[in-house]
Amino acid sequence: MALKSFVEVKLDSHFSIHNLPFGVFKHGGDDAAPRPGVAIGDYVLDLSAIHSAGLFDGPFLCNSDCFHQSNLNKFLELGRPAWKEARSTLQKLLSCAIYDEPALQNNASLKQKALLPMGEVEMVLPIAIGDYTDFFSSKHHAKNCGLIFRGPENPVNPNWFHLPIAYHGRASSIVISGTDIIRPRGQGHPSGNSPPYFGPSRKLDFELEMAAVVGPGNELGKPIDVNNAADHIFGVVLMNDWSARDIQAWEYVPLGPFLGKSFGTTISPWIVTLDALQPFACDAPNQTPPPLPYLAENISKNYDISLEVRIKPSGEENSFTVTNSNFNNLYWTLTQQLAHHTINGCNLRPGDLLGTGTISGPEPESYGCLLELTWNGTKELSVGKSTRRFLEDGDEVIISGICKGNGYNVGFGTCSGKILPCLP
Amino acid sequence: MALKSFVEVKLDSHFSIHNLPFGVFKHGGDDAAPRPGVAIGDYVLDLSAIHSAGLFDGPFLCNSDCFHQSNLNKFLELGRPAWKEARSTLQKLLSCAIYDEPALQNNASLKQKALLPMGEVEMVLPIAIGDYTDFFSSKHHAKNCGLIFRGPENPVNPNWFHLPIAYHGRASSIVISGTDIIRPRGQGHPSGNSPPYFGPSRKLDFELEMAAVVGPGNELGKPIDVNNAADHIFGVVLMNDWSARDIQAWEYVPLGPFLGKSFGTTISPWIVTLDALQPFACDAPNQTPPPLPYLAENISKNYDISLEVRIKPSGEENSFTVTNSNFNNLYWTLTQQLAHHTINGCNLRPGDLLGTGTISGPEPESYGCLLELTWNGTKELSVGKSTRRFLEDGDEVIISGICKGNGYNVGFGTCSGKILPCLP
Ligand SMILES: [Ca+2]
Ligand SMILES: [Ca+2]
Ligand SMILES: [Mg+2]
Ligand SMILES: [Mg+2]
Ligand code: NI
Repeated sequence: MALKSFVEVKLDSHFSIHNLPFGVFKHGGDDAAPRPGVAIGDYVLDLSAIHSAGLFDGPFLCNSDCFHQSNLNKFLELGRPAWKEARSTLQKLLSCAIYDEPALQNNASLKQKALLPMGEVEMVLPIAIGDYTDFFSSKHHAKNCGLIFRGPENPVNPNWFHLPIAYHGRASSIVISGTDIIRPRGQGHPSGNSPPYFGPSRKLDFELEMAAVVGPGNELGKPIDVNNAADHIFGVVLMNDWSARDIQAWEYVPLGPFLGKSFGTTISPWIVTLDALQPFACDAPNQTPPPLPYLAENISKNYDISLEVRIKPSGEENSFTVTNSNFNNLYWTLTQQLAHHTINGCNLRPGDLLGTGTISGPEPESYGCLLELTWNGTKELSVGKSTRRFLEDGDEVIISGICKGNGYNVGFGTCSGKILPCLP
Repeated sequence: MALKSFVEVKLDSHFSIHNLPFGVFKHGGDDAAPRPGVAIGDYVLDLSAIHSAGLFDGPFLCNSDCFHQSNLNKFLELGRPAWKEARSTLQKLLSCAIYDEPALQNNASLKQKALLPMGEVEMVLPIAIGDYTDFFSSKHHAKNCGLIFRGPENPVNPNWFHLPIAYHGRASSIVISGTDIIRPRGQGHPSGNSPPYFGPSRKLDFELEMAAVVGPGNELGKPIDVNNAADHIFGVVLMNDWSARDIQAWEYVPLGPFLGKSFGTTISPWIVTLDALQPFACDAPNQTPPPLPYLAENISKNYDISLEVRIKPSGEENSFTVTNSNFNNLYWTLTQQLAHHTINGCNLRPGDLLGTGTISGPEPESYGCLLELTWNGTKELSVGKSTRRFLEDGDEVIISGICKGNGYNVGFGTCSGKILPCLP
């Protein structure tokens, strides 16, 4: 890969010039206005400064105010041609002058203004999320949940193989990586005819997920064809769908998960674009039975994204790996998820978030949540010097994801959150 | 009731001076900026004009720009003291001068500008809805659904009596009364081991509901006490939670309703405030088993609101009543719903919508949806000259709701929508 940035990008950095993920940051204190940026090495490039300097000179972006907003929704709405224009402009600007474009590299005052050390900025939610949907697209996860909750007879419900099962999640409680999560209180029901108990969740869990960020939406009543669905997906983030298993188990029949999930969902700050993920595309799994025509795609793609979850117990210096999985464990593709979501006419809007569901692999070391890793708390998982059945107060959960290219990475950074005890 | 408006309010009008429901309207074509108004008789009072004239002279509203917005969210956020101030200012301004306040009645040019015939305005969604939740709070509805889908053994799930069951709905597809609803397509599954079919829903239904509109929200992690919950509810609208029963039945295990609901949800344009409903408060039903402490309220209130659903088949002159119910059929109160929603720390925001769930009464004539009225299509319901098992293309469904006072009404107007055939 000949492309090289004049900004130093260490070999293990997630943010090479091949990546250029989009986020929104604040610089200069709490009162600073949030603005869009891309990550490059250990720096954030301020897109509002680049735009103000007239360096977005392509037809889609030169007269747009989309980089002078406090979220990316307006940019997302512009669609793939504008995204491609932004990407190629930025790759040119950030590449070494010997390759291409000296406008930024040789402009010391602009560099000073626009290239900010990552340690100096605070990342905020990159999008205003109108609606958040969570799918259930790993067969291994669906099977393990079925075995745990319903037993060995037909652990995977028959509908699962015909459609990407999903439910609506809570948009208001989606938070940015680094936000503490307060242990939820609620009702649980231990067994049989005993009355429910009430109190802090005793079975607090993480869920290793990723989520697609919707670009242009669709009109109510007008489904998106599965073969055009990719044009409606801007990119992907890491997601931790925190789950209180005791609350969930007691409440979820017949209308699905509610308070067992809605106390918080964490996403990573950097949206990695589908364009940056393109070199890591791989075949999606064969689907048997074959999907109905509206879900049958000409090209069915997954992505080879290595995923890891670490837990850092309170007071420990180190964090410890509890699972390793990969995005390519998903059975239903992102594009099938999106097409299914709209087949009834449901309208998507720019900035909507589509979670994949817990990304569990086939091996026990690749399960995507403690429910599966400890088999609903029936066995212990070692975490450094201690063990876990479920999360304890003070635990920090850190998800990371990375695509390894030839001499460069396209990484997602991390998605982390620490559990705080619930209020008295 | 001595209070009387100088604006003519016919005896059967829903919009007496005791009501004064809030909505958002456009006047003067599609390009006109939406602005807040209240309904009085056959008129809409433009609140931006009243504010500009300096007539909101109380401490909460005189310097607020909440009535110069395109939705009510900013007003909702101000909370009950501001709502009470608005109500008393408006009751003074709209009352006959002999009672009180001539500022509007005697100002011909302001009346001309601010009092608009309802027939001249177009109502739009009154709120920006961040999250929409749908509860399941009528025992009769829960029982009938259980009988139909799971049979006579324990038709109501044991959790139902311990907590107000709910799920997250789709916010993007909430539309204002009068918007056509396109019949959704999707998968259904007739029986046994047959493969699913795909096509236009064969079991399209309405659901008679009401929905609470949230005022001030809460911080993530900080539940709202059930005894303060009323201060977080601005008012109530009528709601039709359109439902495709075949899609819903096939998809809903284990994560709940999704595409069977998300193609459209209709609300009425006028938010009737809790203050206006106060004279129609009545005791909520006794709850056995007694609710857990976090759901036990000092005063547990329902409201006596008569509800009716009519269907107007395509080509018919008339509409025909298919059910009569009452808001007081709900088992869980609005305040219990709201307190439960936040007990895990979930944050509500101004403008959030909390649907009650289908409001079915005990008698077959008071069931709140066709699923119950035709017992999942096993019997026919007469609708004028024809019969229905489920909705047909061209059917218009009209929900209305009214509280009858002594010589005046506090009504909700109507919540209507017509079914269009799905696209080819
Ligand atoms: Ca999940
Ligand atoms: Ca409903
Ligand atoms: Mg969550
Ligand atoms: Mg609906
Ligand atoms: Ni006019």
